[in-house]
Amino acid sequence: MVLAVTMSSFGEPDVLQISEVETPRPGPGEVLVRVRATALNRADLLQRRGLYPPPPGASEILGLEMAGEVAELGEGVTSVSVGDRVCALLPGGGYAQYACVPAGMLMRLPTNLTFAQGAAIPETFLTAYLNLFVLGRLSPRETVLVHAGASGVGTSAIQLIRLAGANSIVTAGTEAKIERCLSLGAQAGWNYHDGSFVDFVQKYTDGRGANIILDFIGAPYFADNIASLAIDGRLIVIGTMGGTKVEALDLGQLLGRRLQIIGTALRSRSLADKIELTAAFQVFAGDALANGEVVPVIDSVFDWRDVQEAHRYMESNRNTGKIVLNVN
Amino acid sequence: MVLAVTMSSFGEPDVLQISEVETPRPGPGEVLVRVRATALNRADLLQRRGLYPPPPGASEILGLEMAGEVAELGEGVTSVSVGDRVCALLPGGGYAQYACVPAGMLMRLPTNLTFAQGAAIPETFLTAYLNLFVLGRLSPRETVLVHAGASGVGTSAIQLIRLAGANSIVTAGTEAKIERCLSLGAQAGWNYHDGSFVDFVQKYTDGRGANIILDFIGAPYFADNIASLAIDGRLIVIGTMGGTKVEALDLGQLLGRRLQIIGTALRSRSLADKIELTAAFQVFAGDALANGEVVPVIDSVFDWRDVQEAHRYMESNRNTGKIVLNVN
Repeated sequence: MVLAVTMSSFGEPDVLQISEVETPRPGPGEVLVRVRATALNRADLLQRRGLYPPPPGASEILGLEMAGEVAELGEGVTSVSVGDRVCALLPGGGYAQYACVPAGMLMRLPTNLTFAQGAAIPETFLTAYLNLFVLGRLSPRETVLVHAGASGVGTSAIQLIRLAGANSIVTAGTEAKIERCLSLGAQAGWNYHDGSFVDFVQKYTDGRGANIILDFIGAPYFADNIASLAIDGRLIVIGTMGGTKVEALDLGQLLGRRLQIIGTALRSRSLADKIELTAAFQVFAGDALANGEVVPVIDSVFDWRDVQEAHRYMESNRNTGKIVLNVN
Repeated sequence: MVLAVTMSSFGEPDVLQISEVETPRPGPGEVLVRVRATALNRADLLQRRGLYPPPPGASEILGLEMAGEVAELGEGVTSVSVGDRVCALLPGGGYAQYACVPAGMLMRLPTNLTFAQGAAIPETFLTAYLNLFVLGRLSPRETVLVHAGASGVGTSAIQLIRLAGANSIVTAGTEAKIERCLSLGAQAGWNYHDGSFVDFVQKYTDGRGANIILDFIGAPYFADNIASLAIDGRLIVIGTMGGTKVEALDLGQLLGRRLQIIGTALRSRSLADKIELTAAFQVFAGDALANGEVVPVIDSVFDWRDVQEAHRYMESNRNTGKIVLNVN
């Protein structure tokens, strides 16, 4: 038996507890990892409330990413060795001492990064990479409007955009968050408490509009997002925190400016997609992570025994970057 | 002086007339082509009515494509020789005895094809190629719903889809049009006079939905198009003949199924884009055009002196495939 965070029922953070579970066994092609750190995602909060069931076959345990050491190899695995430092996206099961993961999902954790930093990499960087490069086809010198710039995905996106030789401008809710974005490479930031971002985008793109917009808000931002896109612009909708129901869409604008509206999600993609994405991301950013040019942005690190407090903190919406749990 | 179709004013087909114009001169990198055939596009009808002004710098003369023989080379052109049989997309000026075009835009016209057939290639095949492969990223074994399957773009798309090892299903307004689509390789067709296509798509995709939809109708089809998309499905809006104003869009569906809505246009793209597209299309379909595996579908060929009649015929919406003008 090993320890994991389990839930006594669905509900508020106090349903989370640490208890004993069966030791997971790696199947063929899988690797058992001794988890040293995991990180929180908004999906965890929904899953805790019973609003986001894990996909069929996935662990019931929370946790979509982790960093740790390879503990045991399943049949046929030759790409890593026992003791290797790794991090990976998971379909679930990260809030635990041990987790199984297909070998193709593993990223090597560079020696300059701690396990806590490693746990902060997979979800945010793979989400940013998927949306900017695979779906968004970002080109050098293009400008990306990153909403929620100080979020985990936002801070990762800003750095990948800089690495690609493109420009980012951001929105965020406090001056401190905007400052953090600028320090990571954003060109300019807009405090959304000051009103619509439309004029801000026009100003910082010389009236051309943004080539890509990464959006988490959905319906309330939709019209302003469309208004802020350049010719051939791509609106990438990663989240709909403000609502999903858009009441007007003018296809004439879509054709006139050749716009794209792209709905996206990482978790629901196939394993093959995720393995391909993981490999492509490492080619693109592996060196930059190893030499410190790109860094996972951590807001705070909790001991996993304080998981309830960590969930409450994320729900308070005060974090800039990832909230990490050290697993011991 | 040479002859061209000009307009006495904007309006009905009877504003079209043949008159003398200045002989065009090829600039550096351009080629002068003796036009032997041109083809009609819906944009010509709009331009004739004054509703679709040519882009800055383009000829005022109608005609977005042509086939003919190279008559003269501009400075620095080495890729073709005088006398070569070619066809090309044009920014305008195809309804004329001579037209200038950047050398990179030329496609070689295979010897098995007439000039009339050559004139029927550029707009429909490059539009289909752009939308299916560049924007739509069509994969083998995917299913494409092609609205207006018997149109110029539709008949080209059906053949390119077949060539890519993918499947097409179509909508059209008569049984004869559907038969024509099936003969070109479509798997099934739906007569839109029989009601919504939603159940038809579900039936022919085993309930999965279409991976790509090529749409020319716009707002009236929007909700049914969204309902008919598979996971990771792409709705490609090429035209909005039925209207542009969509009254409801659920971003939750976009995220849940990871859908993309892509507005597209060929004419407004940059010259560099069009040259790249032309080259990619020839790599993909050049051999298939030369060996007859893929054929431009021609509805009817008019003498260019009957251009008024040809325009009236297109406006009557009875054509299956392209309407061509032989230029003499």
